[in-house]
Amino acid sequence: MEPFTPADRNFEHRVRASFARQGIMRHIGARMAEVGPGHCEIHLPYGEHVSQQHGFFHGGIVAAIADSAAGYAAFSLMPVGAGVLSVEFKINLVKPADGALLIARGRVFRPGRTLTVAQAEVFVMNGGQERLCALMQQTLMTITGRADVVG
Amino acid sequence: MEPFTPADRNFEHRVRASFARQGIMRHIGARMAEVGPGHCEIHLPYGEHVSQQHGFFHGGIVAAIADSAAGYAAFSLMPVGAGVLSVEFKINLVKPADGALLIARGRVFRPGRTLTVAQAEVFVMNGGQERLCALMQQTLMTITGRADVVG
Amino acid sequence: MEPFTPADRNFEHRVRASFARQGIMRHIGARMAEVGPGHCEIHLPYGEHVSQQHGFFHGGIVAAIADSAAGYAAFSLMPVGAGVLSVEFKINLVKPADGALLIARGRVFRPGRTLTVAQAEVFVMNGGQERLCALMQQTLMTITGRADVVG
Amino acid sequence: MEPFTPADRNFEHRVRASFARQGIMRHIGARMAEVGPGHCEIHLPYGEHVSQQHGFFHGGIVAAIADSAAGYAAFSLMPVGAGVLSVEFKINLVKPADGALLIARGRVFRPGRTLTVAQAEVFVMNGGQERLCALMQQTLMTITGRADVVG
Repeated sequence: MEPFTPADRNFEHRVRASFARQGIMRHIGARMAEVGPGHCEIHLPYGEHVSQQHGFFHGGIVAAIADSAAGYAAFSLMPVGAGVLSVEFKINLVKPADGALLIARGRVFRPGRTLTVAQAEVFVMNGGQERLCALMQQTLMTITGRADVVG
Repeated sequence: MEPFTPADRNFEHRVRASFARQGIMRHIGARMAEVGPGHCEIHLPYGEHVSQQHGFFHGGIVAAIADSAAGYAAFSLMPVGAGVLSVEFKINLVKPADGALLIARGRVFRPGRTLTVAQAEVFVMNGGQERLCALMQQTLMTITGRADVVG
Repeated sequence: MEPFTPADRNFEHRVRASFARQGIMRHIGARMAEVGPGHCEIHLPYGEHVSQQHGFFHGGIVAAIADSAAGYAAFSLMPVGAGVLSVEFKINLVKPADGALLIARGRVFRPGRTLTVAQAEVFVMNGGQERLCALMQQTLMTITGRADVVG
Repeated sequence: MEPFTPADRNFEHRVRASFARQGIMRHIGARMAEVGPGHCEIHLPYGEHVSQQHGFFHGGIVAAIADSAAGYAAFSLMPVGAGVLSVEFKINLVKPADGALLIARGRVFRPGRTLTVAQAEVFVMNGGQERLCALMQQTLMTITGRADVVG
């Protein structure tokens, strides 16, 4: 992973405060396990409330967690007062997300003044082992004059 | 929209039963408003529990609803005993989903024996008007020998 | 298709002049069959020089033609002096492109001040019949201060 | 990069023979610089015949080269007698491809019995330096009973 220099040294406070205001993340029980310059990790314990009909994590929830992890990875590099918008993303669901904990690791692939490209890999922890279940590629836009618009 | 002939005349029962088993859809309050051969509509009323930090529907939830609507549109055309897997999707979030009700309309673009391509448009109802907020393109796989694996 | 109002009444001249400067389109024998406000159609006759190993049109060429058709559909709505950049696209190759003529129809799905979402459908003419072979969804950016940057 | 074990020890001959039959690759002057188990590198020298209107490599050609590099990376792992089909891909064009040589590096992200997920990064060589210009994520299908259908 390329090392990135954040525009704002206090990015972590800004990123965590924004994440804390996302009702959906609280509601499903997701937490931000880690955030650094250009990367972010989100964890989601399993529950029936995030399941599809076979008792795995729902693919839409896998996408939501990946979208947030990559989005906040991008947001970590942005200047004070800027917001980040998820313009679009593409996700491959490579394996059923069957396990006790979902782990999404987002990272910036290429930062830009207006547009940033980010990626996320999603793993599911099952029997003490991480298994890859999804890969995402995302485009984000920096918004100036309107703060913290991830999601 | 092209008219499609379902392989199973009782597809509606099968589709609705599968949807009813998705814990996440119940948990967030989504309901299947309509299902026909090759199309499906899912509604989600707004609540703080599906929000991002500005009080709009979270982009990940927009994606989850679009994924389900297009996935069940594809599932409606599949034979008894088959399951459907969301292989991958790509979504453009074109407008903030700011409103009281989210409406995802999925439709099959091209059915196939192994792979199906589907689309979804997502609208948000605001002041009695529908506004487009997202466009999705999705690849699905028919699974035989393992029933109803949407999501 | 929604009717769009172009910002520049003379958009057709501007679009065709830009297309004419694309060396690759000349080199493979593609021509712009039609352009209107928010839509564009590009044709490519078959030849061994655009083939893959089974004698069909190469998937990469299908993508290149779709990218240009949707990109010029977007460019048709932009003001004088603006350029358009293809930020990203996603394409499903739904059928082998086996035929005498490739036809890409691009259209704007949602125009925006900075970002535009466009789509293209690609058909192959075989025995007098058009067959759908690809579906594309694309994000474009309007560039001001640098003209006609499609492709 | 994960090390992969090819199903066919003579994969290189099979991959190169298939590439050699692609008319478009010959026509534009692309060559397969390297192929190994699960990875492949394709080079394309610049010429006016692969340009867009500003004298850079055309975005559609960047996509075509990326599609081939990732497709042949996937094909390298497949058994004798199998073919590979590019089901869909998504590409971000992160920088204008301005330079003398285009280099696409494809690699398998996750091989599967039916579906494989691959990625490609594309670089442009300019003044002796490689600059990243595109990132692609792709889904491929293994076809049995019909050999070498890449592209």
